[in-house]
Amino acid sequence: MTVHRSPVQSFLESLHARFASVRDGEVAAYIPELAKTDPDLFGICLATADGYLYEAGDSRHLFTVQSISKPFVYGLALDDNGVKHMLTKTGVEPSGDAFNAISLHRVTGRPFNPMINAGAIATTGQVRADSLQHRVARILEMFGRYTGHPMRVDPAVYDSENRTGHRNRAIGHLLRNFDILDAEPTAIVDAYFQQCAIAVHCADLALMGATLANQGVNPVTGVRAIEDTHVENVLSVMASCGMYDFSGGWIYNVGMPAKSGVSGGVLAVLPGQFGIGVFSPRVDEHGNSVRALKVCEEVSRAWELHQFNPPYCPTSSRRLSYSCAERSSSRIRHPGELACVRDHGSRVRVFEIQGNLAFATTESIVRDVIAGSGEQRSVILDFHHVTTVNGAAARLLADLAAELERRGTATFFTHTPRLPSLRPQVAAQWTDAAAVERLFRFPSTDLAMEWCEDDLLETLPRPVPSRLDDLRTFEIAAGLTSEEIEVLAQLLDRQRYSPGEFIIRRDDEATNLFLVMSGVVGVWLGEPGTGSRVASFSVGTMVGELAFLDGARRSAHVVAECDVECSLFDVDDFLRLQESHPRIHATILRNLAVSLATKLRKVNRDVSILSTQRG
Amino acid sequence: MTVHRSPVQSFLESLHARFASVRDGEVAAYIPELAKTDPDLFGICLATADGYLYEAGDSRHLFTVQSISKPFVYGLALDDNGVKHMLTKTGVEPSGDAFNAISLHRVTGRPFNPMINAGAIATTGQVRADSLQHRVARILEMFGRYTGHPMRVDPAVYDSENRTGHRNRAIGHLLRNFDILDAEPTAIVDAYFQQCAIAVHCADLALMGATLANQGVNPVTGVRAIEDTHVENVLSVMASCGMYDFSGGWIYNVGMPAKSGVSGGVLAVLPGQFGIGVFSPRVDEHGNSVRALKVCEEVSRAWELHQFNPPYCPTSSRRLSYSCAERSSSRIRHPGELACVRDHGSRVRVFEIQGNLAFATTESIVRDVIAGSGEQRSVILDFHHVTTVNGAAARLLADLAAELERRGTATFFTHTPRLPSLRPQVAAQWTDAAAVERLFRFPSTDLAMEWCEDDLLETLPRPVPSRLDDLRTFEIAAGLTSEEIEVLAQLLDRQRYSPGEFIIRRDDEATNLFLVMSGVVGVWLGEPGTGSRVASFSVGTMVGELAFLDGARRSAHVVAECDVECSLFDVDDFLRLQESHPRIHATILRNLAVSLATKLRKVNRDVSILSTQRG
Repeated sequence: MTVHRSPVQSFLESLHARFASVRDGEVAAYIPELAKTDPDLFGICLATADGYLYEAGDSRHLFTVQSISKPFVYGLALDDNGVKHMLTKTGVEPSGDAFNAISLHRVTGRPFNPMINAGAIATTGQVRADSLQHRVARILEMFGRYTGHPMRVDPAVYDSENRTGHRNRAIGHLLRNFDILDAEPTAIVDAYFQQCAIAVHCADLALMGATLANQGVNPVTGVRAIEDTHVENVLSVMASCGMYDFSGGWIYNVGMPAKSGVSGGVLAVLPGQFGIGVFSPRVDEHGNSVRALKVCEEVSRAWELHQFNPPYCPTSSRRLSYSCAERSSSRIRHPGELACVRDHGSRVRVFEIQGNLAFATTESIVRDVIAGSGEQRSVILDFHHVTTVNGAAARLLADLAAELERRGTATFFTHTPRLPSLRPQVAAQWTDAAAVERLFRFPSTDLAMEWCEDDLLETLPRPVPSRLDDLRTFEIAAGLTSEEIEVLAQLLDRQRYSPGEFIIRRDDEATNLFLVMSGVVGVWLGEPGTGSRVASFSVGTMVGELAFLDGARRSAHVVAECDVECSLFDVDDFLRLQESHPRIHATILRNLAVSLATKLRKVNRDVSILSTQRG
Repeated sequence: MTVHRSPVQSFLESLHARFASVRDGEVAAYIPELAKTDPDLFGICLATADGYLYEAGDSRHLFTVQSISKPFVYGLALDDNGVKHMLTKTGVEPSGDAFNAISLHRVTGRPFNPMINAGAIATTGQVRADSLQHRVARILEMFGRYTGHPMRVDPAVYDSENRTGHRNRAIGHLLRNFDILDAEPTAIVDAYFQQCAIAVHCADLALMGATLANQGVNPVTGVRAIEDTHVENVLSVMASCGMYDFSGGWIYNVGMPAKSGVSGGVLAVLPGQFGIGVFSPRVDEHGNSVRALKVCEEVSRAWELHQFNPPYCPTSSRRLSYSCAERSSSRIRHPGELACVRDHGSRVRVFEIQGNLAFATTESIVRDVIAGSGEQRSVILDFHHVTTVNGAAARLLADLAAELERRGTATFFTHTPRLPSLRPQVAAQWTDAAAVERLFRFPSTDLAMEWCEDDLLETLPRPVPSRLDDLRTFEIAAGLTSEEIEVLAQLLDRQRYSPGEFIIRRDDEATNLFLVMSGVVGVWLGEPGTGSRVASFSVGTMVGELAFLDGARRSAHVVAECDVECSLFDVDDFLRLQESHPRIHATILRNLAVSLATKLRKVNRDVSILSTQRG
């Protein structure tokens, strides 16, 4: 089997091949065990925010996470203590100094930020734990949520770090002196050494990044690794302080939050899009992997990923907009009623919206709706293609609906069940429960359109009476003389149906054509009430002519939606007319064909509005 | 007339009301003229990246831009000199120091970044100019591109700044000492004083921000204010250094690039979405407006705008996907041919894509297409709803098409004319001009689908011969005896048409039904070749039965697309059959009705695939 090569995969492989020859930089030696690393190792991984993984080179070679642990432990400490408390323990300002500088505030002793060692040790001290073991276990467990598998500490590196980490021990005691650490520093520094010695590979780093890109949920396992409100805090300190004293240059060149470790790893995140993990042990004078920097710069440049220069985003939030004058509901109406809907239907407007609704995407919809709402009696917002709605969008939409209500425009939100948070979020803005009930009244746009059309017709002179006894008004009788209509009337059987009663069952043989004399009937592909309601018919229309004509079995259920009265025309009676009254037979056949032609014209128009792509 | 109140407008007004009572901070006094400002002034503006403006409070009160000029002049210097040169004149690292600190590199004398005064003066020195007047004129002209109107210097503030700016003059001489300034510093520092004294209001700031949010193009005037490649550099230095020594905290709290000025203005940018301008003269110890900070924090919090925690983005890039088995082209085919398309049509797949195509949105499409391409003979990518395609997306799509070609899958990009850059960008990846020609061969998806269906049918046993002489094969003759067919055949006239010849003209009276005996005819709503081609008919089908039945005038042009032969059935001959051969008449009527019913079923299916919203 030929494997399809993705261009993304090919590009990462080409970067790997291109930069493998770069031998600048030195393997970090200040932790003796790290100095033993093979300097030529080189892995690249990219994990998308929906969990798809691209890998090139030594992407599964284990190395110790080192400083890349800092933002993740900071996230855990935020989840444990909240932002306010954590800001008392470490600032969030870049210091302009190197990673191992002891940059503490002169008065408070507070480290400048959690990405320098002092801030990181202060952070590890805030992870809630009863003991050293407990602290390390909680940190490992947290990393496991990001990677999707159990994590472990590399004993040799930990041992080496523990034996030589005098500077970090000094920092621990200084922090204790300023009461930034509120417990014995030795065990906290020990936990910090272990956190730095956790073994990871590039695929782990990429998935950890993808988890941050995906609002804190691991996209492969679906497990939440960090509260969504803290993701922005973690990525902010990565953006401002993540690459040591090269952080400003990194944001300038690469334009995404990132963190490097002295063992040669770099993790970068494009929020909402993906995470990258790169590993190559030779680091520059700032402590950043030389090849990893080049890979990330090239990925950012080639794929135009700088986060500060995206294209204008809201244009794709409105999928389609039409009024009932352009595309009416799937209710089949008497031609007179349909003409009325056509003439006045511009007062009912549907907006199909799509994608992720956040501020900018929703603001543009709100503006659109408000701009045209002066003339509108009803507005339907169709959420079928909406993927997510955040709180801000829900509030804007609730405010929009309230404003439209004030103006006397009925508003309906349809196809919302896949967005479980929308209804409570909207309801939270309103005290009027009945109004919320109205807003979410119709599950589908088609049902809402039907209701809005009926509501519109109520305001106009009735084109068709609510009960028809005169066959003359039906399309089927067009062109028949009074005598011929009398012949036809003799053949019809009156039948009454109660609400919910079956008129036609799917797969039945077609024995009758039904003329709706009063009420409304619904057409269902699946079980009535649970399946898909594909159309409905109101007074003055005929039902079942397709199977009546071509003899196929019934393709759908037809059910009375209220008290319904129909006239039934037996197909055998119709066929016998060919011999007994050939002119009546031919006229009815012609009328059926003309009725089908009219429907075909309407549906063709629907297709051209829905596809809006011809020409 | 009742004015509709937008919820966005209401929210900004509520923020204005809420924070107007805050009186913390002091009006800056180190420039004497600034101290005269009314401390209670308060304006808020938001301009969307498509140019819509929301305003509250003193949004048109003029004040001097001060340090907010720095990133914009830096952008001008980048446009003049490029990134590489500018990095020799000023770094891009936060210094951790206050705005007026003289943070220069100890050896090179290079200022840490262009947002501190030293870096800003170095930047002003890099604006290409022959004289002080020329330099100031170029800076004013640049601001005018962002605001859309001529800008001017406030003479009183400039004079006050000029008389008291000794520290900045000292910086100028230090920079000259290190050769960071390569010309006489006095005139450059003078230009810097004037740039700081340019008069702006909140609406200006918001629109300047919206211009940066819109990739450097003023969304109201359409004028480019800065090269798009430099937008990310400007926003990067704002993000890392824009709020003095509170920059880290700002990104942490607010999460968007911003710049403040000591006169009380703050400009913030949400890339791709909008710019905000706030003005309130009381500033805190960092030099940032107290109320402006509160407004921006609240806007970011309430509308969930932190740039580092957006929702997963690519899900909305695929609008719809279907195969020709589910929805075939608008070619009307003989029932046998149509069945063949249904049975094998899964080998032709259409992907309708949408929105802004950048890396993540395109990567997800590429992955989708590649995943299913093993079974596919042809793939159609429909760009009708695509708004923009950046270079990275174009490269990924070019690579995708190349990979599919290698696998023997024909690829077509349709509806691309509104994306003028796509074709050259794709072509740039390929040396094979003929392959690019093939890729863009069909303007519309419908034409591409027709071609792919025909191409698919070529590989299968012919269900219908390419030339039909036997009426028996036509739907219209179903159920007729041999004798009856003979009667019908006597009534028909053969007619030949050359490619491009009209068969039916719109608005003509319907006098004939056309049976296509060989070739293909196209149906056009506008002028053939330029209007909209809504359908086509191939051998074994009938054309014109709607008007034939209901007597309406022709609704479209019908034109031969190749050498075509038709049999014409005159409507009067048909009507006369009712008397002479009532059984033939009735059978044909029934056949016409059944044919319409079949078409109606197909189009109903199309609607349900296109709307995918029933149920």
